[in-house]
Amino acid sequence: MNHTDLFENIKRKKSFLCVGLDSEIEKIPLTLRKEKDPVFEFNRRIIDDTSQYSVAYKPNVAFYECYGAEGWKSLEKTVNYIKENYPDVFVIADAKRGDIGNTSKMYAKAFLENMPFDAITVAPYMGEDSVTPFLSYNGKWIVLLALTSNKGADDFQYHDEDGIRLFERVLTVSQKWGTVNNIMYVVGATRAEMLKEIRRIVPDHFLLVPGIGAQGGSLEEVVKYGMNNKCGLLVNSSRGIIFADNSDNFDKVAGEKAQEIQSEMAKYLTERNLL
Amino acid sequence: MNHTDLFENIKRKKSFLCVGLDSEIEKIPLTLRKEKDPVFEFNRRIIDDTSQYSVAYKPNVAFYECYGAEGWKSLEKTVNYIKENYPDVFVIADAKRGDIGNTSKMYAKAFLENMPFDAITVAPYMGEDSVTPFLSYNGKWIVLLALTSNKGADDFQYHDEDGIRLFERVLTVSQKWGTVNNIMYVVGATRAEMLKEIRRIVPDHFLLVPGIGAQGGSLEEVVKYGMNNKCGLLVNSSRGIIFADNSDNFDKVAGEKAQEIQSEMAKYLTERNLL
Repeated sequence: MNHTDLFENIKRKKSFLCVGLDSEIEKIPLTLRKEKDPVFEFNRRIIDDTSQYSVAYKPNVAFYECYGAEGWKSLEKTVNYIKENYPDVFVIADAKRGDIGNTSKMYAKAFLENMPFDAITVAPYMGEDSVTPFLSYNGKWIVLLALTSNKGADDFQYHDEDGIRLFERVLTVSQKWGTVNNIMYVVGATRAEMLKEIRRIVPDHFLLVPGIGAQGGSLEEVVKYGMNNKCGLLVNSSRGIIFADNSDNFDKVAGEKAQEIQSEMAKYLTERNLL
Repeated sequence: MNHTDLFENIKRKKSFLCVGLDSEIEKIPLTLRKEKDPVFEFNRRIIDDTSQYSVAYKPNVAFYECYGAEGWKSLEKTVNYIKENYPDVFVIADAKRGDIGNTSKMYAKAFLENMPFDAITVAPYMGEDSVTPFLSYNGKWIVLLALTSNKGADDFQYHDEDGIRLFERVLTVSQKWGTVNNIMYVVGATRAEMLKEIRRIVPDHFLLVPGIGAQGGSLEEVVKYGMNNKCGLLVNSSRGIIFADNSDNFDKVAGEKAQEIQSEMAKYLTERNLL
């Protein structure tokens, strides 16, 4: 999938919503616990009821890995289910990997070759050779951490060399490693005002924006500072959608929550004449 | 295991060798491929023949993850095998994880609770709340990336604010998050001369030093600049040991390679009066 395909999907669904599948077993409805694979069953029902309102899903790999080999199977089944039933939907492995070249190559194989993910989140600390192995797959993407939504972002990401902060250096340097068709960046919604400065460096790239909902970010602010003429945004919501209800009706409620966000997104896309 | 226990093990074995289990299936001897779990069988034989010369093992998680749920089982079996048969050996999950707090908590659970790893490598980019969940397990460690051994280390790790480079800031700031009993740092052997400067910031912490062998680092240089009065070093070798031979005799040859390094290490420990 390239930049244009993604924008076409956004226009068609009038949505730039990414649903985060942080599917922690302790939080899923009790009625599902007796299923053979409760996490997959939960995801399947969430996906079926939210897919008309979302253009992307983002399983958070930690929430699968913590169940070992069984969790890994739930992850594989989830991405396969999405790609078989909703092939246009963009699926991001939120894995935050990154290692020396020959190791990153193996992580890339795990997520972009052995599983049909469209993208993987990558940590920039180890630099170019830790990132580029993920860029060798045609039509696949990396989502590189730039400015994250958590408090700890202050510790290193603002480290400033001659007026260039670390996250700005990450944006500037990494642009040379790929194109707008295979690199997007993580920019937290809790720092929405920073999107204005980030857009000066990466005017055309897609940005994956977590932090709406549970983490307190505002969709309106994100759009104000971050939207470009091809939308350029995937805004993620996880807990606010998938754990909105813990009865057996959880999937319907998740669908309603996704639709609420989609409606607001449609309004912004219309105001900007992007539809 | 604490700092003192680790030093005691080093003195007892006259070794500060960590064997990296980057057990890529394409590189393991053909005779093992017919086994039910070739990767585990390879690791088991490597471990049995190298454990008397090494104080630590470091499975590189990417090389297991790339085989999906099956790979994850090989990883679980490997760490369980080491802990059951060689309980004093320190086992590091080379996973380079790091995410917002509630996600890092799940990664910590995966490696330090559900599997009996003693330590996990962690990426610092997202700051304090991405790291501290790994520090809540008594007797367990993080190995935080500081200055890595790859070329891409130049891209961001030397980013300099008022004379303080990013890797120095990582060392300085992160020291407050834990103690010498639960934090060690990754410092690449390919930058051995930097160990002198690093020791000014973290005189007492253990350093995990990859890059010996295939990556070209020198053990002598590492010792010269990095050893402290409790050794303070775990030096990793992966391919140079585990893939030294690809016949059915691979385990014996790996043992010999490990012994060669151990002999050199014993000499350095003796010269420094640490035994």
